[in-house]
Amino acid sequence: MSKLPALAHRMAAVQPFHVMSLLARARELEAAGQDIVHMEIGEPDFDTPAPIIQAGINALQQGLTHYTPALGLLELRRAIASFYECRYGVIISSDQVVVTPGSSGALQLLMNVLINPGDEVLMADPGYPCNRNFVRLIGGEPVSVPVSSDTAYQLNVEHLQRYWTPATKVVLVVSPSNPTGTLISKQSMREMAEFVKQRNGVLLVDEIYHGLIYEDAVSTAVGLGDHVFVINSFSKYFGMTGWRLGWLVAPKAYVEAIDRVAQNIFLAASTPAQYAALAAFQSDSIEIIESRRQEFQRRRDFLVPALRALGFDIPRVPEGAFYLYVDCSAICSDSDLFCARLLEEAGVAVTPGKDFGLNRPAEHMRFAYTASLERLEEGVRRIAQFIGK
Amino acid sequence: MSKLPALAHRMAAVQPFHVMSLLARARELEAAGQDIVHMEIGEPDFDTPAPIIQAGINALQQGLTHYTPALGLLELRRAIASFYECRYGVIISSDQVVVTPGSSGALQLLMNVLINPGDEVLMADPGYPCNRNFVRLIGGEPVSVPVSSDTAYQLNVEHLQRYWTPATKVVLVVSPSNPTGTLISKQSMREMAEFVKQRNGVLLVDEIYHGLIYEDAVSTAVGLGDHVFVINSFSKYFGMTGWRLGWLVAPKAYVEAIDRVAQNIFLAASTPAQYAALAAFQSDSIEIIESRRQEFQRRRDFLVPALRALGFDIPRVPEGAFYLYVDCSAICSDSDLFCARLLEEAGVAVTPGKDFGLNRPAEHMRFAYTASLERLEEGVRRIAQFIGK
Repeated sequence: MSKLPALAHRMAAVQPFHVMSLLARARELEAAGQDIVHMEIGEPDFDTPAPIIQAGINALQQGLTHYTPALGLLELRRAIASFYECRYGVIISSDQVVVTPGSSGALQLLMNVLINPGDEVLMADPGYPCNRNFVRLIGGEPVSVPVSSDTAYQLNVEHLQRYWTPATKVVLVVSPSNPTGTLISKQSMREMAEFVKQRNGVLLVDEIYHGLIYEDAVSTAVGLGDHVFVINSFSKYFGMTGWRLGWLVAPKAYVEAIDRVAQNIFLAASTPAQYAALAAFQSDSIEIIESRRQEFQRRRDFLVPALRALGFDIPRVPEGAFYLYVDCSAICSDSDLFCARLLEEAGVAVTPGKDFGLNRPAEHMRFAYTASLERLEEGVRRIAQFIGK
Repeated sequence: MSKLPALAHRMAAVQPFHVMSLLARARELEAAGQDIVHMEIGEPDFDTPAPIIQAGINALQQGLTHYTPALGLLELRRAIASFYECRYGVIISSDQVVVTPGSSGALQLLMNVLINPGDEVLMADPGYPCNRNFVRLIGGEPVSVPVSSDTAYQLNVEHLQRYWTPATKVVLVVSPSNPTGTLISKQSMREMAEFVKQRNGVLLVDEIYHGLIYEDAVSTAVGLGDHVFVINSFSKYFGMTGWRLGWLVAPKAYVEAIDRVAQNIFLAASTPAQYAALAAFQSDSIEIIESRRQEFQRRRDFLVPALRALGFDIPRVPEGAFYLYVDCSAICSDSDLFCARLLEEAGVAVTPGKDFGLNRPAEHMRFAYTASLERLEEGVRRIAQFIGK
């Protein structure tokens, strides 16, 4: 009697996202006629801006449906390089820019090029769950460093000093962070870049929520030297989630190896998406995107005090992304159970802390403000009623 | 003095495609005003059929730019399942269908789910070079099995008996094959499926050139049991290369694990591409696609005798894809050198055997008939003149 072929061992360590089953249950309840306020979804509620859509349509009408080079359309690589100069005053060569199928594609390329089996990758806990899994899938060891509001839920050079071992190869940081929305300061980023340089390591900076920042002028980690790799995406700030398009900026010496991996595992990123993205940097697109950013800010500025008033602890107002990571220990002892009940009994979907790591997950929840202000207000009303406030 | 961080060891085994530098040189010559006949490109010269383009435009106009589920749009998974019933008479559940970013994405998912470091994967040499690299990137061991025209350049159960070891986990076959265009018979596919089943192994069948077949009614490996995984693509037959959209059909027991990997490494395939692909199975699209298939057949039927007349050996006429893998040993002793000179001196680009493995590459070349009949005729004229025929 033949047995089914076994799954590869790495699969044992790869968890599904719990928010997916929560979302599926929310959809079921909606299909049964119930109204659900969605504060769990990590995707802007806005469609892609019209000028980008139009550029995509134009490309399709012109039959631009063939493969591009593996590193991406030269025009788009140049446009991305210019964007760093215009927005951040950082000058890079378009040779350093690689266009990828989403920032997921960028992470895959860098894991393949940089990580040997057994190499350790330091990352903050709480953090985006895919990042741990990317490292595991390639045979590396994700090392979760517990962080708290004391360091804005971010790694800093003291963490690196404490957790770096001879097996460490990469420090992976995310700014603005998912799930916390917090930033790494320019000073701290420079210190970490210098730290990894001294150890021949890599600082990998995920800036996919860059642009969605509601405070001061911001800096990028691009330009911090030959040990720093930066990934970014057209998904969140530019509103192009479903198109699956991102990019990375690498030190020149690595681009040839990245090209070899990209040729093999992708061939190239989506051609219509690349032509559409050429319009993302136009002033009419940026105007739309910036007005959306202001709308996200209004939502954040409503939601932070509203949740605090209900007893959720938000030690500092996050500067970016569209997430609030709140301490709910004054309200419940088990965020997973609480989120499940909140969905079933109050019709509000929020992500429990367990999707983001092992650092006190039961005491935390992530609110996404990817719904309209009216819906967020309704959500807060329902939560208030549910907890008897 | 700090050094640059080292590349991961796996990179040493990942070769670039030689055809890429050949193509780059051809583009240089063209930029300098020279006319080049392209017989090296593995991409149909036709744009995406108009009804598919229109469906993509409609999706964009409707703002369908958000993420889909990781396994793909339910409608598209159902349409793909129906396609197997209509075209092949094979009934599968849409639950078994996973939509992927190109067939490259499908291969990545299956490598992650099935292959442990050290697991051996049997594959034919000559073969598509990415397949070896996919296995290497995940830490597996590609085992190249030399094949010849005696078995239509395909693996059969005798090869499996000879090369299977306790470390073998997967047999990867490609039908129609790149670079040879040859098929695996229904009988041989069944024998190999039974062979791997007896050993709790996996038969992974790449059918991305399926549809582009110029002989008898064809069968698919879909439906051959719980040890068989099939990948396919909208790229070649449906003319959607640049959209990056493929699929796989897996035994039901594996779909949950595939979903977990897809959630992490892709999130999902491109949304506009998925909506566009819904139109691929419509009768107006199929009509266009079938007329292109007939055009490919006309090209093949011109090129095979024309190359034979020049002294290239094509032991049997390949039934599918858009490739001819020819033995050029009567004409040159080093196909790599010959292809380089053919490009420089005669303006004809053809891929040398070395891109496809280590099985007598110097004696072989791959001609792609992805150019018009007129251009193929011009190419043959130039080659004839170049070799003094």
